[in-house]
Amino acid sequence: MLNEDLIIHFPKIGSEAEGYLAVAEVGKTCPFPILRTYWVYGCPNTMQRGGHAHHTIEQLLVCVSGAVEVILDNGREKKSFLLDDPTVGLYQKPLVWGDLIYHQGSVLVVMASTLYFAEDYIRDYQEFLQLAS
Amino acid sequence: MLNEDLIIHFPKIGSEAEGYLAVAEVGKTCPFPILRTYWVYGCPNTMQRGGHAHHTIEQLLVCVSGAVEVILDNGREKKSFLLDDPTVGLYQKPLVWGDLIYHQGSVLVVMASTLYFAEDYIRDYQEFLQLAS
Repeated sequence: MLNEDLIIHFPKIGSEAEGYLAVAEVGKTCPFPILRTYWVYGCPNTMQRGGHAHHTIEQLLVCVSGAVEVILDNGREKKSFLLDDPTVGLYQKPLVWGDLIYHQGSVLVVMASTLYFAEDYIRDYQEFLQLAS
Repeated sequence: MLNEDLIIHFPKIGSEAEGYLAVAEVGKTCPFPILRTYWVYGCPNTMQRGGHAHHTIEQLLVCVSGAVEVILDNGREKKSFLLDDPTVGLYQKPLVWGDLIYHQGSVLVVMASTLYFAEDYIRDYQEFLQLAS
């Protein structure tokens, strides 16, 4: 199911006077080991990225500046999540297709469960539907 | 030594038309396992944070939006690093004191080698100097 269970709320520490810190910890607010962290930035407005699923890789997505719409699709249903709060993460499991729409200047941080390997990417939507069914 | 060896250059993928992705991978561009990732945001201009060292925790600091000045101090020398490029990380080793000055609206992402534990923090500068000597 693509539901609110995929939303993770990170602890937030701080105040308006000093700024804020939010934290993801492996085994606590991150449900997998972090082997890779990447960040996406400098996107033009309404830039669409993503457009793939993974065979095995788990990801945790956090918008730390601006707003990014993430449309998840498990082959049976689609659900849109608007990430615009640095204390909120979205857990993208394997065999879930993700399309992402970036508002200008937004920054998305993604924690991933493996090092990069190209073979894990499913970029053909028909192939994805067969695998996800 | 506090020198340019502490600067890590992350691979950067993308273009002005589609935005950019930069990546840290454990054992490649991150020299330790990532057990925790945190991000600092919403700081007023010239907000000073940090002000401590660690007994054992290693950290990798990346400014993904805006600019953050990081002053590292190993007890014998101090060096200032201006982080204003999402493709550049700063490796903060144990027993290195860090003072951070945030430009307004900047976002710093930090990868850390352990889960949070309060006992690892050294917040007394005189104690730090004794330990670092």
